[in-house]
Order: sequence, then structure tokens, then C-alpha cells
Amino acid sequence: MSEIFTIDNFEFQCGKCLSEVQIIYQTYGDLNADRSNAILYPTSYGAQHSDIEWLISADGILDPTQWFIIIPNMFGNGLSTSPSNSDCGLVESGFWFTHFDNVRAQEKLLTEVLKIDRLALIYGWSMGAQQAYHWGALYPDRVQRIAALCGTARTTDHNRIFLQSLRSALTADPAWTGTGFDRLPERGLHTFARIYASWAASQEFYREGLYYSLGYSSLEDYLVRAWEASYRQRDPHNLIAMLDTWLHCDLSDNSVYQGDYRSTLSAIRAKTYVMPSTTDLYFTPADCAAEAALITNAEYRPIRSIWGHRAGNPYQNPEDADWIRSQIHTLLEGIGDRG
Amino acid sequence: MSEIFTIDNFEFQCGKCLSEVQIIYQTYGDLNADRSNAILYPTSYGAQHSDIEWLISADGILDPTQWFIIIPNMFGNGLSTSPSNSDCGLVESGFWFTHFDNVRAQEKLLTEVLKIDRLALIYGWSMGAQQAYHWGALYPDRVQRIAALCGTARTTDHNRIFLQSLRSALTADPAWTGTGFDRLPERGLHTFARIYASWAASQEFYREGLYYSLGYSSLEDYLVRAWEASYRQRDPHNLIAMLDTWLHCDLSDNSVYQGDYRSTLSAIRAKTYVMPSTTDLYFTPADCAAEAALITNAEYRPIRSIWGHRAGNPYQNPEDADWIRSQIHTLLEGIGDRG
Repeated sequence: MSEIFTIDNFEFQCGKCLSEVQIIYQTYGDLNADRSNAILYPTSYGAQHSDIEWLISADGILDPTQWFIIIPNMFGNGLSTSPSNSDCGLVESGFWFTHFDNVRAQEKLLTEVLKIDRLALIYGWSMGAQQAYHWGALYPDRVQRIAALCGTARTTDHNRIFLQSLRSALTADPAWTGTGFDRLPERGLHTFARIYASWAASQEFYREGLYYSLGYSSLEDYLVRAWEASYRQRDPHNLIAMLDTWLHCDLSDNSVYQGDYRSTLSAIRAKTYVMPSTTDLYFTPADCAAEAALITNAEYRPIRSIWGHRAGNPYQNPEDADWIRSQIHTLLEGIGDRG
Repeated sequence: MSEIFTIDNFEFQCGKCLSEVQIIYQTYGDLNADRSNAILYPTSYGAQHSDIEWLISADGILDPTQWFIIIPNMFGNGLSTSPSNSDCGLVESGFWFTHFDNVRAQEKLLTEVLKIDRLALIYGWSMGAQQAYHWGALYPDRVQRIAALCGTARTTDHNRIFLQSLRSALTADPAWTGTGFDRLPERGLHTFARIYASWAASQEFYREGLYYSLGYSSLEDYLVRAWEASYRQRDPHNLIAMLDTWLHCDLSDNSVYQGDYRSTLSAIRAKTYVMPSTTDLYFTPADCAAEAALITNAEYRPIRSIWGHRAGNPYQNPEDADWIRSQIHTLLEGIGDRG
């Protein structure tokens, strides 16, 4: 069962304030006596905690018999405060969420409710990795380790164009009013899914026809059932809100670091595994390696895979899951860390 | 001045017949006495002959003081028979152009008007390379050499998703009627340009900010002035028609070869330079190398560039232009070829 953490009068980085915001979160396993076995596992684009909890199991990547794992739902994902469940609006109305907002709210949850001073690990894929980097820079003493899979601490210009094309796909739909949607953007979602599918798996993935082994009968079947169907589950306002968080992603763009990107990366103290996929087309290995070089305790450990960006979320992909699990177990090694 | 070649009762591969079709073409230089110095230079996506003739000059990639160069405008490009200047319609009305149509019409032009039996070279970039491969397979004795830059003989599945996202971007616009557009698809063109820009240059191109050196003041300025403006010049029906040709591209998908892709590639006799860009995201080096391995007289000569797909159309890029020129001069070497 998920839990609700309510914050009154939360001031967002965009300048707007909501009198009440909620973080919906779920925990797995038990917090140990000295509260030292906590792992934070933030959500990725379009995902809710139930979508990403598959990797939490006794023989999985995150083991709840040893660790206390918290999944906080990101603002805008439809569970925590989002355009679909509040009147916050979108950029067109002057409102957007940033990861600075996400991690500050998560920090309050940890401090005020869970009484966790220090995280043994933040494990994040994609937008989850973005949140992990923000945590590492904003609360360097409170994060022992980071596993950042297929994500960067700042959105690159190339990635920005992909995101703008996704945003434009939705707002080009006849259902777009200028500030929101008055019905489901059917045509926009069709375009959106195809743009996403073209970027989030690699050329090699399609060349090898890996989707056939997943039970799809054709490329079109794969696009419709695997991609379009999953985004149609989400409120299109939320799809936009999460894109805007991604577009705004820069761990140095806040009152603490004031845009000094390199210094902010060097402020991270956590032992950090930078784990891009070798075939990720938007969080490229080169971009991730460049960030790894700026983080003091980082190790660059790429996932050698043809699954593209999705190598880092390998629920259909046992080979990459095994490799990631072994990496995370290595990262977590060390008696005493768990109390 | 461009010329008009008219064909009566042309039967298209889609099964439709038009009582009159036109190929608009332009020639550069002079045909020599034995008609042996002809180079065919087909057009690429969205381009008309005036857009691609820049590389024809005495010190350019194609030298009109030595060669007789013919640019035939592709069906659908707005000059030759296209949705904008005929009532042919789009796939939704059961009509599409294929490269089988393009090269058959071009062959008639060469045979009936220009009296050219054999081409010294077909030089093609992108959809131009697709046409070059079709020529090589359909008229193997009439093509001495091919330079295929950044293109494949058959559209890959991954490339197909990119193309479908572009098509969907336009047809998602409120101006789309189900069979065409009743006004300019403003929103659709906005999305279209961003999708195209994200794929047609490489991540490295954007990382290095090369567009600043081209005179653009920001990423947005580059997207608007370099990409969106150029596609807005074209009738959106034509943009769709050319996508459909690309989607249908398969040099073996015709009555001659009946889908036997490998045999069709091996039927090409021309000395062929397969020249992908090392950073092309949709005509990938791997896909081009695999085709090179199936063509008897092919050499794989990749363009080492961070310009992505556009490395093969280097009008703003003297370094790649120089390298391509030297390759083409090597390919064209050989006394006797020019008579």
C-alpha cells in the first residue's frame, strides 16, 4: 500500500506556491535499528511506483530482505501532485516542476516522516538518475552511494530537441487549447509514441527484431501495444509536466549552485556508478562519461547492450538485469554500511 | 533553365495511372561526342534541383567542365509530378510514388531525350542514394559507378519509425482532413522540424554547438531558421508524398526482383562507393556496411564526421566537402571512361 506525505505551502522553483502538495510513496522491506539500510529509488518518465517495483525482490536488483527501499513518486506522474490532480497547470500558465522541487520534497519526507538521515544508495534510471544526481549535489553528506543508470545531471541540447519534439507532438493535436487539453489528444499520442519508440530503443534493437521475442507480431504491433498503449494510460497534462521537468533538468540551476555546473558535479561526495547504456541515443555514453569525469568518486560502468536507453530498465531483458544486479551488489558491498 | 520531360499514360507501381506525368530536370555542362560523360544526380528529401546544384562547379564535387550532369527532380518534390501540381493524392487515396517509378521515368528521359546509353556515375545523397541503388539493380549495364552517400537500398525498421513519426506529426495537425490538408499545418510543421533536426544531425553536432559557427544565435534560432523554415517552403502534401516514397524504399520490391533483397543487391555491377557518415543516426554505418558486403564491386568508404546524416550534403561544411570531392575524383579516375 502506498502512503501519502503532505506538505503545506510548498514553494516551487518556478515561483508558484501550492497550499498543499502530496508525495505518494511506497516502501519495501524494513528499516533497520540504526536506520542505515535505506535506498531511495525515484521514478522515471511516465512511471509510477507500481511500474518500477519489479526489480525489488529477494533475488532482484534491490533486495528488500536486506534493504529498506523507498519509491517516491515524482511530481507530475499522476500520483504525487500533478496537473491531473491539482490546479497547478503547465508552463503555459507559468507552472512547472523541477527536480530541485522533487528532491526537496523527498528530503522532507525522509527527515520528517521516515527519520532517515543518510541514504545507503540512490538508485535511479533515466529521470530517476537525474534525481539521484540532484540529491548527491544538494545533500552531499546524506547520500553514500549513487547508481545513475542512463541519465545525465543536466539535459543536453540534443536531448532537448527530442523532448521538444515530444511536447510539440502533443500540443499540435486539435485537443490542445493553448493551456491544456479538452479531450484526449488521439493524434498527438500517436505521434508521441512513435517519436519515443524511435529514440528509446537502439537501431540495433530494431535491426535484430528483438520485439518479436517479446511476443509482438510486427513492428506496428510493437509500436501500438508496447509504446502507444503505455503512454495512453497517463493524463496528457502529466506527460507534458514530466517533459517540462526533464527539459529543466540541471543540477546546478538553483539558488544553491547558481548555474555552476562543474562545481555542482564536483560537490557530489557519494560513491557513484555512472551507468549509461552503450547504445542509448539520448543519454549518450559520451555525455555520461563526461559527467563521470567531473564527479570525484565516480566510476564509469557502461551497460553493454543493444537495448538502447531501455537497457537500464531491463524488466524484459534478463541479461542486462543480471549484469546490473551484480554491479549494484558490488556497489553496496562493505560491512558496516548496513549497520 | 530547367527542362520538362512529359510521359503519357505512366503506370505507377501503386497501380494508378496518370495520363500525363512530368519530370522536371536540369543539366549542367556538355555531353561529349560519344555521350560517355554523363552523371546522374537525383534529388534528396524535400530538395529541388536548385537546392543541390551547389556542389556542381569547376572546383566542386561534380565538375561541369568535364562532366555532363543531370539532376532529375524526384516525383513528389513539387517540381516533377507531385500532389501539389496534380490530382494524384496520397496513400490515403491509394496513391504513392516509389523509386521504381522514379528510375523508370528517369530511364525514359535518358533513352528518349538525352540519348544516353550508359551513365559514368550516379551520385546520390540520402534519397538520392536510394535512387542510385535502384538504378544499379534495375539497369546494371547502364551504370558504371555509384556514389551512395548516407542512404540504404532498403529502408530499415528503425528508420521507418522515424519516418512514421514525421508523417504522424503532419497528419496530427488540425489542418489534416483525412486525405490532405485544408490549410498550412502550422503545429504539425513545428513538430516535424524538431523531429527532423533531432535525427539529421548527430548528438556530437549539438554537443559541439556547431550551429553557432553557422551564424545561429541559439538552439531555438537554429531549429526555426534552419529547419522549420526550409520545410515550410514545401507543400505539406509533398512532404508526405516523399516520406511515402522513402517508407516504400526497397530496391527488390518490384516485378523484376520480387522481394529478393540479397539477390537484387548482388545484381548491381557498378563500381560502388558506399559512403555513410560515421555519425548518421538513421542511415547507420552498420546498415550501410551490411549492404556494401552484398554488392559485388562495392567499397565501404565512410565519411568521418560529426555532422550526422548531413555530412553527405556538406554545403556548410568544407572539410567533409573536400574529402567527398577527393573520393569522387578517385572513383571517376580512369582514362577511357570519359571517351
